[in-house]
Amino acid sequence: MGRTTAPCPRGRAMGDRPALQVYDTTLRDGAQQEGLHLTVQDKIAIARHLDELGVGFIEGGWPGANPRDTEFFAGAKDLRLHNAVLTAFGATRKAGGQAHSDAQVRALLDSGAPAITLVAKAHTRHVEQALRTTLEENLAMIRDTVTFLVGEGRRVFLDAEHFFDGYQLDRAYALEAVRAAVESGAEVVALCDTNGGMLPSQTADVVDDVTRTTGAPLGIHCHNDTGCAVANSLAAVDAGVVQVQGTVNGYGERTGNADLLTIISNLQLKLARPVVADAQLAEASRISHSISEITNITPYGRQPYVGSSAFAHKAGLHASALKVDPDLYQHADPSSVGNRMRTLVSDMAGRASIELRARELGLDLAGQGEVQARIVALVKDLELRGWTFDAADASFELLLRREVSGEPISYCEVESWRVIAEARGDGVAVSEATVKLRAGGRRLVATGEGNGPVNALDEGLRHALVGVYPEIDGVELVDYKVRILDSAHGSDAVTRVLIEMADDNQSWTTVGVAANIVEASWMALLDGLTYGLHSAGVPVR
Amino acid sequence: MGRTTAPCPRGRAMGDRPALQVYDTTLRDGAQQEGLHLTVQDKIAIARHLDELGVGFIEGGWPGANPRDTEFFAGAKDLRLHNAVLTAFGATRKAGGQAHSDAQVRALLDSGAPAITLVAKAHTRHVEQALRTTLEENLAMIRDTVTFLVGEGRRVFLDAEHFFDGYQLDRAYALEAVRAAVESGAEVVALCDTNGGMLPSQTADVVDDVTRTTGAPLGIHCHNDTGCAVANSLAAVDAGVVQVQGTVNGYGERTGNADLLTIISNLQLKLARPVVADAQLAEASRISHSISEITNITPYGRQPYVGSSAFAHKAGLHASALKVDPDLYQHADPSSVGNRMRTLVSDMAGRASIELRARELGLDLAGQGEVQARIVALVKDLELRGWTFDAADASFELLLRREVSGEPISYCEVESWRVIAEARGDGVAVSEATVKLRAGGRRLVATGEGNGPVNALDEGLRHALVGVYPEIDGVELVDYKVRILDSAHGSDAVTRVLIEMADDNQSWTTVGVAANIVEASWMALLDGLTYGLHSAGVPVR
Repeated sequence: MGRTTAPCPRGRAMGDRPALQVYDTTLRDGAQQEGLHLTVQDKIAIARHLDELGVGFIEGGWPGANPRDTEFFAGAKDLRLHNAVLTAFGATRKAGGQAHSDAQVRALLDSGAPAITLVAKAHTRHVEQALRTTLEENLAMIRDTVTFLVGEGRRVFLDAEHFFDGYQLDRAYALEAVRAAVESGAEVVALCDTNGGMLPSQTADVVDDVTRTTGAPLGIHCHNDTGCAVANSLAAVDAGVVQVQGTVNGYGERTGNADLLTIISNLQLKLARPVVADAQLAEASRISHSISEITNITPYGRQPYVGSSAFAHKAGLHASALKVDPDLYQHADPSSVGNRMRTLVSDMAGRASIELRARELGLDLAGQGEVQARIVALVKDLELRGWTFDAADASFELLLRREVSGEPISYCEVESWRVIAEARGDGVAVSEATVKLRAGGRRLVATGEGNGPVNALDEGLRHALVGVYPEIDGVELVDYKVRILDSAHGSDAVTRVLIEMADDNQSWTTVGVAANIVEASWMALLDGLTYGLHSAGVPVR
Repeated sequence: MGRTTAPCPRGRAMGDRPALQVYDTTLRDGAQQEGLHLTVQDKIAIARHLDELGVGFIEGGWPGANPRDTEFFAGAKDLRLHNAVLTAFGATRKAGGQAHSDAQVRALLDSGAPAITLVAKAHTRHVEQALRTTLEENLAMIRDTVTFLVGEGRRVFLDAEHFFDGYQLDRAYALEAVRAAVESGAEVVALCDTNGGMLPSQTADVVDDVTRTTGAPLGIHCHNDTGCAVANSLAAVDAGVVQVQGTVNGYGERTGNADLLTIISNLQLKLARPVVADAQLAEASRISHSISEITNITPYGRQPYVGSSAFAHKAGLHASALKVDPDLYQHADPSSVGNRMRTLVSDMAGRASIELRARELGLDLAGQGEVQARIVALVKDLELRGWTFDAADASFELLLRREVSGEPISYCEVESWRVIAEARGDGVAVSEATVKLRAGGRRLVATGEGNGPVNALDEGLRHALVGVYPEIDGVELVDYKVRILDSAHGSDAVTRVLIEMADDNQSWTTVGVAANIVEASWMALLDGLTYGLHSAGVPVR
């Protein structure tokens, strides 16, 4: 309905609602997705984005079960989260043991996470066949582990795995598992549709029954196997859960988890249940795309709210009406989630945003309509060909300064470069790059070696320049990302390289695009060093 | 819930249900998707697939509005549909005119389609601002056009555009539009959530009200802007609609239309409302992929039921239980939709999943605990160093066969390779690769050129091998992906390359990992060609 609509969902008054916790499990359950592999650095970068989004809890992984996750929690002390509570995921103690002496449980404590989510079985056949213990011992494992961790001062949540299937098979036992957790001090028991087979009305009925029967504060954890993960989550919220779990971009095993970005947007814009600040929601599209860059999972254009097509209209029948009153054709204001309306044919950002960005850099473009129009056209053309300036602030700044002043910022004149990568029979591959350029009135030729062509080029370029610009020793190559675009056929693909560099004061990212991956890397490298020298105030010599 | 579950949805008894019509609009509304362009031949091929799927109606396009659509209907006589009724889409007559003399309406008749769907406005502001006519004239246009076409012996449906938004703004008028259509002889009035902003409980409430107030046979037409298109459609079915509209793979403008494959699967497998034959449903995955081939839209791996990941399990944790009883971990039987369960091998994998995967390849490892343990250890070690086998089935198969037989599959002995990438002052970068190897008892040296180092290597390797193995001409490089891992410091980074190749029968993916991107590419290339030759049964020469 219209964007200002906030209908009151059936069956609940609005006044008596408890606060709703948003619980993100991108770093744990989302990482189960096929093709998704996160390094510790990736996890830290994603956690920062999640914190900016304003989620209440960030489930960081399973410390003790996985060395990478242990390392993440060890490093997480430096994260300095502003909004979110870091949460460790793990299991109840082993059957027949004791929580305080269980190595896995101790690893959860040792992680230092202020909140801990325990996964537990609520399904009799899973207890017997997967856990291979008795139904009574499983309840004891829940009670014992929750009690111990609460006693150690941690906030404890319980993920009741396979809850809905278990409820159908043996309702009484499933409810017992919930009661065991809550009576032992668990703050919330999240009902998990682990296999993802639920539909919304069924979900609502079960949540309603469990709430009435146990009085437990409940959460909901959905998977998208019926295409209803978002609707199931909303049905559970309507039925009274106090915590909603999900992942950014709906990452997760099989068909994925419930997409937290869609859920938050629906809650906030359709159901008048704000769970993050409006300013945070307005970052949703940027955060979605930034996290895609980290995971290297191609963004899904049709993703609700934040997808590149989410507000794209094929300009036909209603093009003129659209111009007069976009509200007639849009279910929500795209800017509320940081997205924008696109009429397909013409693309991209307009003059206003270019002017805004220029102002941030101290360049006043107000009134310079011609310059603005030229930059808009240039950016459109480059983005069509694979450039991305959202992720490459430094390249955009160099472009902007060049277009405004009419002259590129340049510290050298490139004559040529060449990279050789080779391997002998012993299998060891080596790379070597030769760079020829002019700077400081001299012709400079240097060779660099590296464990790959990009490192060799970086070395060669630095060796050539350092005599004239010793300041580049303070600039470090921090990160290097590659993405193949339009890869319907290998040979037609275009390669986009993003390079992050840093000095003592800041870090910045540059972009290069070419059919040749080495050429794209060269562009981004040269831009990166140029930006580093320029922003440090080094004069052209 | 379990696959045999068929809970009775709230509020309706099962006995009194009318038959449910499945109405496909892939060829009309689905074609509004960004990047989707269908030729007449494409439309005919898709219509054949839809007919095999067993949908009741195929909306073929708008004859008269679009020459391609006119041509499609002209050629559709040869389609010989077995299940579906071909349906033409069009608008009510022009304001102020008469239906029988309206060119657009006559084109609908001339299409020869036995059923016609008229789009009409049910939203007062759309009538006034987009249609630019009076509210009363709009109702007259509906009555007049429906009456005329029914009189000409056609089945007539009405798509009430922007119905839900219109209902909220002016319920009385929206209901008037429905009544005008039904009283004039329309068989079904489909309520359209054209902007896609609805949520399931709201949808149910509106459908319920319209049914009770007007007694009209209703249909539902949803878009996925809130991520709830499937759930909204099911809510409407639950509230009593007799027709459900959607598109294959959820194609459509913005976030797409409701995915008919998910809806049909849910109706049939979760709600005991069979709408196609079981044998037809079992073709769903094949049909989804075949249509993707025609549209050239990359299939979405996480698509419910039919996606390549929909029944893919990663967690090694429960692989052993999975082997004993897959029903504990699957919400439905994959074969019911023509999909299959896949166990993804990953660093979390144990022996059970290795054994399972081997069995899929026809290798019986049962009882060979030592071989299993060695492979598990090897996979864990490789994945720790950056390999990923869940995304590289072919590399895993080569590894598995090597470990089981004790000998690698190898078609050549590599002596050395070298790649040169260079750019002169004119900025054009070129790449050249020289490959030296032994095969077929000969020493082979060849050079390849390419627009990048990987293409040059691929060319060089093929040139060297093709004399001995002409079969490699049938293997194509389809896709190339690069990922930098552990990239805290550029120089320590490891590069992972995934290469997809294909022949006439299948496609497969291989992986290579090295500090040097060119070396990683070489590994994946060599594995890819090796797999292609091996799976085609080519002997080592």
